[in-house]
Amino acid sequence: MAPSSTPVSLPALPDGFLPALKRIVGDRGLLTKAEGILPHVTEQRGRFVGATACVVKPGTTGEVAQVIKLCQDHDIAIVPQGGNTGLVSAGIAFAEDRAIILNLSRMNKVRNLDPLNNTMTVEAGCILQNIQEAAAKADRFFPLSLGSEGSCQIGGNIASNAGGINVIRYGNTRALVLGLEVVTADGEIWDGLRSLRKDNTGYDLKQLFIGSEGTLGVITAAVLKLFPAMKERSTAFIGLRQLDDAPPLLGLAQSLIGEALNSFELIPRIALDFALKHGQDITDPLGQPYDWYILLEASAGTPQANLPLLFESFLEQALEAGLIHDAALAQNTAQADSFWRLRENITLCQKAEGGSIKHDIAVPLSAIPAFISKANAAVESYLPGIRPYPFGHIGDGNIHYNLSQPPGMDINDYLAHWDRLNRIVHDIVVDMGGSISAEHGIGRVKLEENLHYKSPLEIRMMQQIKQSLDPKNLMNPGKLLPVSPRS
Amino acid sequence: MAPSSTPVSLPALPDGFLPALKRIVGDRGLLTKAEGILPHVTEQRGRFVGATACVVKPGTTGEVAQVIKLCQDHDIAIVPQGGNTGLVSAGIAFAEDRAIILNLSRMNKVRNLDPLNNTMTVEAGCILQNIQEAAAKADRFFPLSLGSEGSCQIGGNIASNAGGINVIRYGNTRALVLGLEVVTADGEIWDGLRSLRKDNTGYDLKQLFIGSEGTLGVITAAVLKLFPAMKERSTAFIGLRQLDDAPPLLGLAQSLIGEALNSFELIPRIALDFALKHGQDITDPLGQPYDWYILLEASAGTPQANLPLLFESFLEQALEAGLIHDAALAQNTAQADSFWRLRENITLCQKAEGGSIKHDIAVPLSAIPAFISKANAAVESYLPGIRPYPFGHIGDGNIHYNLSQPPGMDINDYLAHWDRLNRIVHDIVVDMGGSISAEHGIGRVKLEENLHYKSPLEIRMMQQIKQSLDPKNLMNPGKLLPVSPRS
Repeated sequence: MAPSSTPVSLPALPDGFLPALKRIVGDRGLLTKAEGILPHVTEQRGRFVGATACVVKPGTTGEVAQVIKLCQDHDIAIVPQGGNTGLVSAGIAFAEDRAIILNLSRMNKVRNLDPLNNTMTVEAGCILQNIQEAAAKADRFFPLSLGSEGSCQIGGNIASNAGGINVIRYGNTRALVLGLEVVTADGEIWDGLRSLRKDNTGYDLKQLFIGSEGTLGVITAAVLKLFPAMKERSTAFIGLRQLDDAPPLLGLAQSLIGEALNSFELIPRIALDFALKHGQDITDPLGQPYDWYILLEASAGTPQANLPLLFESFLEQALEAGLIHDAALAQNTAQADSFWRLRENITLCQKAEGGSIKHDIAVPLSAIPAFISKANAAVESYLPGIRPYPFGHIGDGNIHYNLSQPPGMDINDYLAHWDRLNRIVHDIVVDMGGSISAEHGIGRVKLEENLHYKSPLEIRMMQQIKQSLDPKNLMNPGKLLPVSPRS
Repeated sequence: MAPSSTPVSLPALPDGFLPALKRIVGDRGLLTKAEGILPHVTEQRGRFVGATACVVKPGTTGEVAQVIKLCQDHDIAIVPQGGNTGLVSAGIAFAEDRAIILNLSRMNKVRNLDPLNNTMTVEAGCILQNIQEAAAKADRFFPLSLGSEGSCQIGGNIASNAGGINVIRYGNTRALVLGLEVVTADGEIWDGLRSLRKDNTGYDLKQLFIGSEGTLGVITAAVLKLFPAMKERSTAFIGLRQLDDAPPLLGLAQSLIGEALNSFELIPRIALDFALKHGQDITDPLGQPYDWYILLEASAGTPQANLPLLFESFLEQALEAGLIHDAALAQNTAQADSFWRLRENITLCQKAEGGSIKHDIAVPLSAIPAFISKANAAVESYLPGIRPYPFGHIGDGNIHYNLSQPPGMDINDYLAHWDRLNRIVHDIVVDMGGSISAEHGIGRVKLEENLHYKSPLEIRMMQQIKQSLDPKNLMNPGKLLPVSPRS
C-alpha cells in the first residue's frame, strides 16, 4: 500500500530534455543534483523517500505552460508540488512514476488585493502565512489556518482542499476560492481568475481542480475570498457531561453564538493527560478531570457583538440543560492561548507515548458519538491495551482517530497492524456513511484503501473525467486514481 | 438566438417506445396528449412554446434509471424538468431536440431530516417552499429563497445553482448541497448522498452536476445543509449618498454586523417611483427622495445577538463617514414587510411602464458603480430616452440590469433592440471581468451569447467533460453547450 523508499535521483530522461528545460526556467529553476532534490522527495515526517531526475521551478505561468508542453512532447510525467507538507504523499514523485517534480515555490507573488471586493489574487507558491499577513495588513482576514501554515503553499492547499481549524465558520479551502488560473495537461493556460460571487455560465470547472491533487492540471494562481478583520475573540474550555452531548451542545452554540463560532474541537482526557505529562506550559483549565472536552472559540469584527455576554448565556443554558459539567471562559489572550496550546500539543505529545496509527475520518456529526464508541470497542477487541485517541474538528464531523500503542509493546510490532486497524476503523466509518479521508486527501498513501471503498461507478466517473482532461495520464499519475483504468 | 415557437406535441417516436415507457412509470406517469403537455413546454413568462412527444413523470429513482436506459437504447434525448420556473428555457424541449421531457415532480418526498447534523435529504421534485417549511418545523432554517419558491423544485434549483436573496450570508445553492443522488446518462444510479462537511476522497463530482442544467445526468435527490432557526431580524432602508458608497457601506456592515447580514439589495429611485405609481400598499420609507437605496437585513437565532444595537451603531458610523443620507430602521414586522414589498414590486411594477430588456450580470463588487455608470452611458447613447433600471443583489456583485423602454415608443420596436442592447451591456461586463449570467444560467436563451464571450479553451474543457459523461449527447442537448462540438 505504501510506496517503497528508493534512490533520490534517477537518470532516464530523453536526450535534450534537461537542456530544453533549462532554456525555459534558467539555471536557478532547475535542480538535478541529489542534495538539491532530496528535500523535494522526502515526505515531511520522513515516512517515504521518493525519486526524480529533476525538480523544475518555473517563475511564471508561461514557464509552467512551456514545461508541460515539453513534458507532453516527451511523454514525461509531472508531479506538481507546493510546500511538500501533505500527509498522503500526493506531491512526491516515486521511482515507478518516472516523473519530474514541478515545484511552484518561485511563483509567490500577491498579484492583487481588492479590499472592497474582499478578494486577493495570489500565485500558487505563496506561503499560507504570508497570505494571512497580507490580508491582515489590508484590515482583512483570510481564514484558512492549519498546523503547517508557515510552510505550506496555497496551491497545495487548493489542490488538496485543505481543512483546518476554522472550517465550521468559513468552510474548507474549496469555499474560499472564487477563481483559478490553471495550466492544463496540454500546456494551455486557462484564465479562470474570476473575482465573482456569482457566475452561472457553465460547468464550474474550478471545482474539478480544487481537491484534484494535481492530477488534472497545475494550479498557478487563485482568487481568494477575504473577510472582515476579527477584532475580538472569546474562547472557552468545556468539560462535557458525556460524549453524546457534543452534537446538541454544538447546536446550542450555533443558535446562541451564530456564525461568530469559529472552532469547536474535541479533546479526550487521554490527550490532556499526555499533554500534561509531556508538554511544556500545559495546565488543566478545569478543577476536576472529565472524560471529554470541547475547545470552543468565536470571534467578531466589533466589540459590540458582545461575545462574552453570548458565551455566558450559552454556557448557562448548556449547564441548565445538563450538557456540560463545567467550563472555563478565557479572561485574556494569555489564557485563550493556553487553551489552544493544549489543542496544539495533542499530536506532539502523543508521539512521546510510542507508535500512533492514524485515521482522518468524517461521519455525520450526529453519528460521531456512536462512531467513537463502536470504533473503540472494535480496536480494543482486536488489540487489547490499545489506546484510542480521538480528537479534532468534531464541529465538522471530522475526527482524527489516532490509536496509541499498548504501553510496553514494541513500536514496530505495533505499526505492523497499521493496515488491519485502518480496515477495522474504515469499515465502521463507511458503514455509517462517512469518509475515510476528511481533510488529508488520498494521494499515494490512501489510494488502495479508497479504491476498496469507493463505488466502482464513482471511480469510473472520476476516470472518465481524468481521461478527458489528461488523456496521456501525465499529470501526477498514480495519485488519487490508479495508473491504469480498473477493469 | 431565441428558439422558435412550434407545435406542442410531436409524433416521431420509435415503435414500442411509448408502451415501454408506460410499463416503467404506469399510466399516471406518462402524458402524451397536447393539453397535458402544454404547460410543460410553455416558458413561464410565455416567451416560448416548445414541443415534445411526451412528458414522463417517474415516481422513483429506479424508474428514472429505467427511463434513461430505454432512451439510450432508442437514442432519444431527455430534457430533465422541475417546476419549469427557469428564466433561460433550460427545462423545456424544443421541436429540433426531438426529446422527451422527464419531469421530477412526482418525486417529492423528504427522505430524512437530521437536526443534530443540520441536514435534510430530499427528492428532486420537492417544492422549495415545502422544504423551507419542513426545516422550520424541525426548528431549523433552509436559507434558499427566491421569487418562485412556491412552485420551483429543489432539483431545478440545484441544476441551475439558484441564487436568491440570502446569498451574501449562505452562498448560492451550490454552497447548500452536501450530497447528490444522480442518474447518469448511462442510466446508472450514483449514490452520492453524503451528509458530510468534509470529504477529500476524490474529485468532488457533485460540483459538476450542480449548475449543469441537466446536461450531464438527472439529479434525483440531495442532502441539503440546514441552519439554526432565525428568531430575530432587523431591517433597514437606507438612502445612499451616492452609488460609489455602496461597496464601502457593505464593508462597514460586514465588519459591524458580521455574518448576521442576510441581504444587501440595491434599489434605484426609478424603481421606487414605479412602485409608488403602480404598486399597492407602497410607501416611501424616507422623508426625501434619494437616487439610490439599500435594503439591508440581518437575522439571528437569539435576541441576545442584539441586532437593533448593532444596526444603530452601523447606521451612526455610516452617517458619520458620510456614506448615507438617511435611513429608516423597521420598528416592527409590518414595517420590515413594507420595505420588502417595495423590493418585491420592482419587477412587477416595471411591466406597467412597457417593454423591459433584461440582464443578469455580476462584476466584482468594487466595480459595480463603474459598471452602472458605463452601461447607463452606453445604452443612453445607443437609444436616447431608454430608462436604466439596475437593481438587486449588489452585496453579491449581482445586478439585474433591466432597461425600460423610452416612454411612448412602440413596445415591439423596442424589444427588437434586445440582442443589440445585450451585446452593448455584456461587452462592458466582460471587459470588467464579469459574468453575463450571474444566477439565471445559460439554457437555450443565452447559449449563443455565452459562446461569444467564453474562452474557446473553457468551452472545449466543458465539451470534453460532457463527452466523457454523456458520449451520445442525449442529456438536454443544445442547452448550455451547442449540440455539436465547435471546430
